[in-house]
Amino acid sequence: MNAPEPVAAEAAGAMGRWIAGRARARAARGGARSTRAATGLYDLASNDYLSLARDPRLAAAASAAEREFGTSAAASRVVVGTLPVHEELETSLCALTGRGHALAFSSGYTANLGLLGALGGPGTTMILDEHVHASLVDGARLSRSRTLTAAHNRHDDVARLLAARDTPRAVVAVESVYSVLGDAADLAGLAAVCAEHDAVLVVDEAHSIGVHGAGAVAAAGLAHDPRVVTTATLSKALGAQGGAVLGSGDFGAALREHLVDSARTFVFDTGLAPGPAAAAAQAARIVAADPALPGRLAERSAQIVAALAPATGLDVGCGAVHSARVGSAEGAAAAAAELRRRGIAAGCFRPPSVPDGISRLRFTARAGQEPGELGRALDDVVSVVSGIQRKGIPA
Amino acid sequence: MNAPEPVAAEAAGAMGRWIAGRARARAARGGARSTRAATGLYDLASNDYLSLARDPRLAAAASAAEREFGTSAAASRVVVGTLPVHEELETSLCALTGRGHALAFSSGYTANLGLLGALGGPGTTMILDEHVHASLVDGARLSRSRTLTAAHNRHDDVARLLAARDTPRAVVAVESVYSVLGDAADLAGLAAVCAEHDAVLVVDEAHSIGVHGAGAVAAAGLAHDPRVVTTATLSKALGAQGGAVLGSGDFGAALREHLVDSARTFVFDTGLAPGPAAAAAQAARIVAADPALPGRLAERSAQIVAALAPATGLDVGCGAVHSARVGSAEGAAAAAAELRRRGIAAGCFRPPSVPDGISRLRFTARAGQEPGELGRALDDVVSVVSGIQRKGIPA
Repeated sequence: MNAPEPVAAEAAGAMGRWIAGRARARAARGGARSTRAATGLYDLASNDYLSLARDPRLAAAASAAEREFGTSAAASRVVVGTLPVHEELETSLCALTGRGHALAFSSGYTANLGLLGALGGPGTTMILDEHVHASLVDGARLSRSRTLTAAHNRHDDVARLLAARDTPRAVVAVESVYSVLGDAADLAGLAAVCAEHDAVLVVDEAHSIGVHGAGAVAAAGLAHDPRVVTTATLSKALGAQGGAVLGSGDFGAALREHLVDSARTFVFDTGLAPGPAAAAAQAARIVAADPALPGRLAERSAQIVAALAPATGLDVGCGAVHSARVGSAEGAAAAAAELRRRGIAAGCFRPPSVPDGISRLRFTARAGQEPGELGRALDDVVSVVSGIQRKGIPA
Repeated sequence: MNAPEPVAAEAAGAMGRWIAGRARARAARGGARSTRAATGLYDLASNDYLSLARDPRLAAAASAAEREFGTSAAASRVVVGTLPVHEELETSLCALTGRGHALAFSSGYTANLGLLGALGGPGTTMILDEHVHASLVDGARLSRSRTLTAAHNRHDDVARLLAARDTPRAVVAVESVYSVLGDAADLAGLAAVCAEHDAVLVVDEAHSIGVHGAGAVAAAGLAHDPRVVTTATLSKALGAQGGAVLGSGDFGAALREHLVDSARTFVFDTGLAPGPAAAAAQAARIVAADPALPGRLAERSAQIVAALAPATGLDVGCGAVHSARVGSAEGAAAAAAELRRRGIAAGCFRPPSVPDGISRLRFTARAGQEPGELGRALDDVVSVVSGIQRKGIPA
């Protein structure tokens, strides 16, 4: 996990010197990020929550679509890039989530950018929970709206900011399950606050679609609420690539048309490729037809909690994501490196990628984990993490 | 191409009323964008320039990768989402373009956002050609840099803005071939201006990678220039999905590490799915091994120019993209609708999607077009477009 030696970059002048300086700063603070391939490691780090990414039914659906429609949408969806497989995907996502209207994007990131960009502007106030994903922060910035941050999971704070706003329109953006700490938003409570203050509630379901079957919005009884807009990623529990915006009722229908016309990341991007679109559609059908699948994930998630919580003071999530606090960025990196030496991949989250500034290791459950193998990996995790927590940073 | 009737959206309050108003405005100005599937039409609109999107070699490569690695990268590239297929893709892109270092993103859009976001900040001035793609505009905005617009294809204007800047660092962003007008940037001239004024030159090769074989940066003799950074899309000539940033020399290597650590759309996005990554890698190998392929595209492009230029006053592009001016947005929509009735898909570009405010139809060439069939389609185009141009807007 050590940073590479900063290379000489004088050839590119001031920018080269600045980038070299940034590399030195990364090295000094204990390790840069790396794109080293993680093959052969036991996976406690991915977002393949339902183990569908390696399900042969998804690969078969992708292959069939690639043979039928090609390997690219080859144009924007509003030019000639809309294919029958996109309509199949959008129908499948609606059937899974109980929502009325869906629009697929090329990623969850671009779905959030496009949605907030198209809802925002001078007449809109955006209120973001302070723990939301980078894509929602960037979307709010691109929208040119007045943007405010609400204290994490405090809807009294959301209500206060909504009441004080001076714009006719408002958007509140949260995640159903937060990606690092794994905690949940109280969606029913937030929807009530938004209804009272005439705001739209955007719920990023990246870590709950599939994990909770139909998702957290459906579980909260909000699938038919036109004020609640969902964004989904297709690259986590649904085992593919892409993203989507979903809504319901007349407003959901009008919003979809509005995005087709004005979401920049929809209009000015190539449509989602046929293979990933077909794989995600197949995953949505599998999840809708097999209510036991999220249950198997919940069992593995409970196994992780039972093994790690007593020994590591785990921050227990409400879905598939849990994290253990480690004293320092260096400690987190050292623990992740030791786990990797033992053949285990865990997520290593350090500032600025942790919303509360506390470095931690993140562990994710998957439906397909075999309990005995998972148990042996968790024994190693307990040993390494509690060791690091006891000793502080190793030399 | 008519807008759907705006739906009642009172259920969502002020936002619902605003979106309904936007829908009425779209309807009044003559037709909203649509995601209607375009199957069965003769394609003069897609960006599948080398006809690789339906090449069985790409589908086979995608299928093999999906069987081997699954249908999702299932995590950020910096967590456990880097797979051997990403390294294969990056190597293939370097081999095709002659550049030294590559980093793949999930789309061309996110590659531009991530790159400009990571190069920008308070110490950087961004100078964008006024015709650049939405993703470069959005990337500059996200970067929080001072951003200036240069007159289209005027490097004297670029030089003037660079000379007057008050920041140590500067980035100039252009496209090698512009997406609507099809005209080219003088890359060698721009690179000289950037070297003189200590700026980095970002060249979006969306419409030149593959179209010009190794791309326009290589054709200009700049493949080894560390000051020149390329962004590429994998969803046009390369027939897949995704994007990439490429650079050369010590600066290219340092930039790649810098992006791995700080490009938000790289760090906080799921890695490109294995299928599209493998398809794009295969496409890059095919293009590198078959120098005749861009030549076949050039022949079809010349056929389009020969047929349309005399009759329609075509804006002749330097690659695969050409466009014909139509008097009004309504005229462009009417011409596109009439072509669709005749079984032909053409791009219809109206404000705000045209950089110069002039509505036009866009026609793209593809290497796999059969000359006789293309000729018959072009006869229809001449008839429809010159008719609309003569008569003005039909009733």
